[in-house]
Amino acid sequence: MQFSKWHGAGNDFVIVNGFKEKVAGLDLAAAGRLVCDRHFGVGADGLVFVLPSDSADFRMQIINSDGSEAEMCGNATRCVARYLYEQGLTDKTKVTLETLAGPIRPELVFTDGKVSGVRVDMGKPRFKRGEIPMSGPAEDGAVNVPVTVDGRTYYGIGVNMGNPHFVIFLDEDVRKVELPVTGPKIETDALFPRKTNVEFANVLSRGELRMRVWERGAGVTLACGTGTCATVVAGALSGRCDRTAQVHLDGGDLTIEWAEDDRVFMTGPAVEVFRGEFLLRI
Amino acid sequence: MQFSKWHGAGNDFVIVNGFKEKVAGLDLAAAGRLVCDRHFGVGADGLVFVLPSDSADFRMQIINSDGSEAEMCGNATRCVARYLYEQGLTDKTKVTLETLAGPIRPELVFTDGKVSGVRVDMGKPRFKRGEIPMSGPAEDGAVNVPVTVDGRTYYGIGVNMGNPHFVIFLDEDVRKVELPVTGPKIETDALFPRKTNVEFANVLSRGELRMRVWERGAGVTLACGTGTCATVVAGALSGRCDRTAQVHLDGGDLTIEWAEDDRVFMTGPAVEVFRGEFLLRI
Repeated sequence: MQFSKWHGAGNDFVIVNGFKEKVAGLDLAAAGRLVCDRHFGVGADGLVFVLPSDSADFRMQIINSDGSEAEMCGNATRCVARYLYEQGLTDKTKVTLETLAGPIRPELVFTDGKVSGVRVDMGKPRFKRGEIPMSGPAEDGAVNVPVTVDGRTYYGIGVNMGNPHFVIFLDEDVRKVELPVTGPKIETDALFPRKTNVEFANVLSRGELRMRVWERGAGVTLACGTGTCATVVAGALSGRCDRTAQVHLDGGDLTIEWAEDDRVFMTGPAVEVFRGEFLLRI
Repeated sequence: MQFSKWHGAGNDFVIVNGFKEKVAGLDLAAAGRLVCDRHFGVGADGLVFVLPSDSADFRMQIINSDGSEAEMCGNATRCVARYLYEQGLTDKTKVTLETLAGPIRPELVFTDGKVSGVRVDMGKPRFKRGEIPMSGPAEDGAVNVPVTVDGRTYYGIGVNMGNPHFVIFLDEDVRKVELPVTGPKIETDALFPRKTNVEFANVLSRGELRMRVWERGAGVTLACGTGTCATVVAGALSGRCDRTAQVHLDGGDLTIEWAEDDRVFMTGPAVEVFRGEFLLRI
């Protein structure tokens, strides 16, 4: 199976061209677990298939490293947009991708005639507990919701960006948070009927944040696009930052704009690292 | 740069053909760090160059993920032996490889006409403190040497298998050892002037051990060939097991024989996972 390996701010993906490779009949969960394994497979946060779509230019299907399927992933979207253009699968610099979270429209950003990054319309955030989803009255919002883990109570903001997020602003440096300890306990708290991604954030200024993420189904990753959007939205919603802010992640920087029409735009890098042929049977 | 990605019991390597690729002039430390990075590079425990040799069939140069150079690595040796044969660089089923730890002679093992594993003559163990090296009288051995870490004293056996090892047999299950906490503290103890690899082992029977390793320069890995040899040698030396034993590692099983002529033989798997072309500048 031919593949291409990409990263967007360190969040990394194996992209497979479903027009060329035989995807039908694959056990996608098993394929995701093996291909994403960093010692026995290629190694990645996700295995991404580019497929035909009836409703959009292409369909993007993302299998997490634990075999579960992701509704959407902003960093993967940037990588796929650039992949489609540079592999010649499209000559559009703005495509529409069908995802489980609805259509996504990434746009290539050019500097001096070369692709320098990708801007993605990540859609509108949703705040109702029924939409996130979080337990409690379906029409209520979820601001300053307490979750207690190992005797400590964290206050978070629930945001859906196509997938559920719980954003926790801390005064202490988020680089000191023990994500593998705290993350999974919040992810699986009874408050979140479909589990949740967990973001820990610091406000550095009105236009600059730092964030670290525990991703549902993927664990600690160096960046999470939808989580970065959710973080700026939660920060702006609670008066902590402006509606446009740069976010420093462990794997790089992303710039988020929460536009006046309520849509959220994310701009960041997409880098092809290597191309290869997977030799094991999946 | 073209490469091939292999693993031997989960200890994984990017192998580069130095006869084809331009290796001269490369900053090997920087190349090792970038290529071995699991998010921004290919991802591996080591970057291995196959090169011409004046004294052997080939020279094998191994750069660890931290950029340091390894004297030798038994798992990499198995992968390189099979790589050389299957890539057609040699038709010998037993080659001699020049390494910083001296010549190594891997031999392909065939089952039903297909390569089923590789047996490596890992050379003779050395036990004197001056040879390992460990501090103290150069001619003395190093059996039951205490090292105290975080208030707990471990008793280990020093063995050199081309590189330094410190093998600690425990009664408690080694799967519970917090390698990232304890490993680096022992690795850098003043007892070891060139640092050391650290093995924690359980004796399951006279012919069966379990072992987990903290590798000098690479951290937690799923397997370490020289460390597995050192473990069986230390076990036999101290009367804990036979001179031939199977060792269960986090990444698979290896069989070690400490022959009567004092040489140590390791037999285990070597699997090619993918081939690719690295696209970033190194």
